[in-house]
Amino acid sequence: MTTQERPPTEGPPIGSDRVPSLVLVHTGHGKGKSTAAFGTMLRAVSRGWKVAVVQFLKSGNWKVGEEKVGRSLGVDWWALGDGFTWDSDNMSETEAVAREAWSFTRRLIAQGNHRMVVLDEVTYPLNWGWIDESEMVEVLRSRPSHVTVILTGRDAPDSLIEAADTVTEMVKVKHAFDRGIRARRGIDY
Amino acid sequence: MTTQERPPTEGPPIGSDRVPSLVLVHTGHGKGKSTAAFGTMLRAVSRGWKVAVVQFLKSGNWKVGEEKVGRSLGVDWWALGDGFTWDSDNMSETEAVAREAWSFTRRLIAQGNHRMVVLDEVTYPLNWGWIDESEMVEVLRSRPSHVTVILTGRDAPDSLIEAADTVTEMVKVKHAFDRGIRARRGIDY
Repeated sequence: MTTQERPPTEGPPIGSDRVPSLVLVHTGHGKGKSTAAFGTMLRAVSRGWKVAVVQFLKSGNWKVGEEKVGRSLGVDWWALGDGFTWDSDNMSETEAVAREAWSFTRRLIAQGNHRMVVLDEVTYPLNWGWIDESEMVEVLRSRPSHVTVILTGRDAPDSLIEAADTVTEMVKVKHAFDRGIRARRGIDY
Repeated sequence: MTTQERPPTEGPPIGSDRVPSLVLVHTGHGKGKSTAAFGTMLRAVSRGWKVAVVQFLKSGNWKVGEEKVGRSLGVDWWALGDGFTWDSDNMSETEAVAREAWSFTRRLIAQGNHRMVVLDEVTYPLNWGWIDESEMVEVLRSRPSHVTVILTGRDAPDSLIEAADTVTEMVKVKHAFDRGIRARRGIDY
């Protein structure tokens, strides 16, 4: 409880450095990693930036709400995953799909046609060893200087946190799922 | 470091309870509280829900990117704050503006015309004692059953966490601002 704090009469320091782009990571086990990326995407779109989203787990079969609206806003959207791993009949195929998605994404970042690229749920194939960690860090470090990259997913590895400018851990304080409440259309997908 | 984990071959339990709406709180000192609300708003919009956003600190003078895009998607948007408190010439006026915004918002929630209502940065006036905490909890508890409410801001008080279904704490692992990097248009606003 922190009631009766006083409203601040002085603002935070205004930074002095301008950087052309950032690497942002949203990790942790709480809700909000992907949605915060999509909210940031809105800001970029509103400034006229070209934005790309690559989803590493979701497949094209399951059109999520954010994809529909994102596309209507002109965002280039690729759901390149093979779906949930527990639905996979053939894990080496699922792995091959993820490797292909990464190969596509590194070319996309290097091309520099998009000023913001969102790599949604990319930490999962990274942690399963399907994407090489040092290669990903190298792609981020050597990206065109105007390209902001946002990466989401649980358990971001140290090397990725190191390479990022801003990292938020979404910590679950409580979640409706834990009380047996089903995922809700319009809120959870 | 958690590389070489195995991809899960079993999904999480699917909840059995359907609830008509949820109360979500995004708190903590990290980046992503408001953007996650706007990302969730996208999902609601994509399902054809009527969505309202009330901003408790931002004033209408500073049109943020998300407002522009939100409006273009049909979201009803009210930036009802008096701006940053450190820009205030008259704090009792700033307080009155916040009280007015709350009075408006409780009517808006009670009316039930919007299936999702976002109360952005509402914890600040709450923690400054400008909005009564027990009154807010009562408004959430007695809301029309189809209305999902998302509340954002640092230091959400215990009673609000108690009243919520899902609470995420956005924890700052690192932030570009701490290295003196300025807020970036298209990313931070």
